[in-house]
Amino acid sequence: FSSATTIRATLFPGDGIGPEIAESVKQVFREADVPIEWEEHYVGDQIDPRTQSFLTWESLESVRRNGVGLKGPMATPIGKGHRSLNLTLRKELNLYANVRPCYSLPGYKTRYDDVNLITIRENTEGEYSGLEHQVVRGVVESLKIITRQASLRVAEYAFHYAKTHGRERVSAIHKANIMQKTDGLFLKCCREVAEKYPEIKYEEVVIDNCCMMLVKNPALFDVLVMPNLYGDIISDLCAGLIGGLGLTPSCNIGEGGIALAEAVHGSAPDIAGKNLANPTALLLSSVTMLRHLELHDKATRIQDAILNTIAEGKYRTADLGGSSSTSDFTRAICDHL
Amino acid sequence: FSSATTIRATLFPGDGIGPEIAESVKQVFREADVPIEWEEHYVGDQIDPRTQSFLTWESLESVRRNGVGLKGPMATPIGKGHRSLNLTLRKELNLYANVRPCYSLPGYKTRYDDVNLITIRENTEGEYSGLEHQVVRGVVESLKIITRQASLRVAEYAFHYAKTHGRERVSAIHKANIMQKTDGLFLKCCREVAEKYPEIKYEEVVIDNCCMMLVKNPALFDVLVMPNLYGDIISDLCAGLIGGLGLTPSCNIGEGGIALAEAVHGSAPDIAGKNLANPTALLLSSVTMLRHLELHDKATRIQDAILNTIAEGKYRTADLGGSSSTSDFTRAICDHL
Ligand SMILES: CC(C)[C@H](C(=O)O)[C@@H](O)C(=O)O
Ligand SMILES: CC(C)[C@H](C(=O)O)[C@@H](O)C(=O)O
Repeated sequence: FSSATTIRATLFPGDGIGPEIAESVKQVFREADVPIEWEEHYVGDQIDPRTQSFLTWESLESVRRNGVGLKGPMATPIGKGHRSLNLTLRKELNLYANVRPCYSLPGYKTRYDDVNLITIRENTEGEYSGLEHQVVRGVVESLKIITRQASLRVAEYAFHYAKTHGRERVSAIHKANIMQKTDGLFLKCCREVAEKYPEIKYEEVVIDNCCMMLVKNPALFDVLVMPNLYGDIISDLCAGLIGGLGLTPSCNIGEGGIALAEAVHGSAPDIAGKNLANPTALLLSSVTMLRHLELHDKATRIQDAILNTIAEGKYRTADLGGSSSTSDFTRAICDHL
Repeated sequence: FSSATTIRATLFPGDGIGPEIAESVKQVFREADVPIEWEEHYVGDQIDPRTQSFLTWESLESVRRNGVGLKGPMATPIGKGHRSLNLTLRKELNLYANVRPCYSLPGYKTRYDDVNLITIRENTEGEYSGLEHQVVRGVVESLKIITRQASLRVAEYAFHYAKTHGRERVSAIHKANIMQKTDGLFLKCCREVAEKYPEIKYEEVVIDNCCMMLVKNPALFDVLVMPNLYGDIISDLCAGLIGGLGLTPSCNIGEGGIALAEAVHGSAPDIAGKNLANPTALLLSSVTMLRHLELHDKATRIQDAILNTIAEGKYRTADLGGSSSTSDFTRAICDHL
């Protein structure tokens, strides 16, 4: 992509604080002259029969057509007969890998100052199969599905990511000492892919031990790849190390090179519309989208401006202990560009 | 139990460093005049057909007869045709709850100084069903089983524990937003039991969020109860907060009031027999055994001696940054009694 061409990208501002933080991204992108034209889509107020959810068919088509998108928090409406919005997006767009760079933010103090790792989560199968049933009264079972295809695909993504991002090591996280067949297959696939990347170190870490090591010494880890549920757990644990979901970018990778970046925090209805929300997670997610588009100069410039604003500490939103509004914080980032 | 009566308890010193740290417990118990007579059992070197594992039938009978036991680390021999020793114990003795008190040790610095929680793990079902199979080539599945009986039993244990130990709140950890039927049943059982304990606060926390909150602010939690795999993960995560498995006691509760306390760390073959091992986890586990026997005076006296020795910092084993031998550390604890 040359920066002269205009790139179309889908934007789901989402619910609650979504529109405000999406506005923040639009403003920063304008200020940084990012050649992106947004196609905005909102979650519908009726179930679209073609998606079986409140997501409109048009919005999914938009992501498919553009190949890139950015997504704010979506609150799944309560009630029966439809699927969770996040899960629908993953299924419909076949978003097989959820990638979360997780690093300590300079100047924002937590108990950890040395986190710098990437979690890569298989995003389509495992415990999320949706296959559950009652065997007899009082006995229910759920199926965890692991496939060779999905395991190879996410392992391949992880090693490729490590190689192209100057990372040294990939750790496969598992519980194959208990789930020998399912997690065993996942590991087997990781090993196969590891052989193709002799320059990347490979190790296997049992999930319980991994969590213990992460809280003791997260600097031990580099790139982590894992089945769906472990990824769900570990990526949030890691977010906690650096301050929470309000600070962590996330990007979903789909078949055919689709990238849907997203803020994984909630829609915070209590502060929605009050100009109080922290747009950092969505902004940093938009940076991962720019990197996916190989707009590295823009990405680095924006990322630096965000990190410098936080490091400086003059403008911070309430969740980070400051008293800035969303718009003042955004303005400060623009000033740092 | 009156302290004049001698109580028989089963002791599995276990493998690797097991015998050394078990010796430490025996010494401390002698010094504190604990009225316990140990029945020692070692893991066999052949598969006992009655247990399908290297655990002897006699050793299981001993625990059943005595109702209490203490267990060091057991290294499951590699090879096929037998079951893991830990899993065999849980199955054969129906050890349905694994209880781990987890608190910051005064004077032993980690990133956290305010941990004081109890994890209670369902220990018999869930992802540990052992039911796995290949559906077609490249597609495998494993079954997670949740039963009303086991869920009620562990929930009942958790609330009873909270009530009898002056705890205020029980948090049920789950992923029922995804596994609505299995984790949903677990929650339903917790809610039923919660109703019988109006004086104990009850809340439900999704596992990913729980892990994030634990690393951000563990003081938010009191008693946590959860299905098997989440318990495996969270109990190790919590151990990491206070320094690792070498410092955390654990006790398994079985039907009919059996209590098998255990050190959950490994057998550390590299340092076995060198008088270097840290006996703290086994010692603190033996304290939970004494509490189960309602020998509270002895329990408190021994626990204080252990904690004071660590707090003083003069005698610490290598894993805690010191240079004491197992026997010097043990001697120091005896001196503190
Ligand atoms: C909301 C929930 C269904 C979702 C998940 O479990 O995947 C969330 O925790 C996430 O990580 O995106
Ligand atoms: C060794 C392993 C089978 C075991 C488990 O997963 O239960 C261990 O992690 C534990 O917590 O006791």
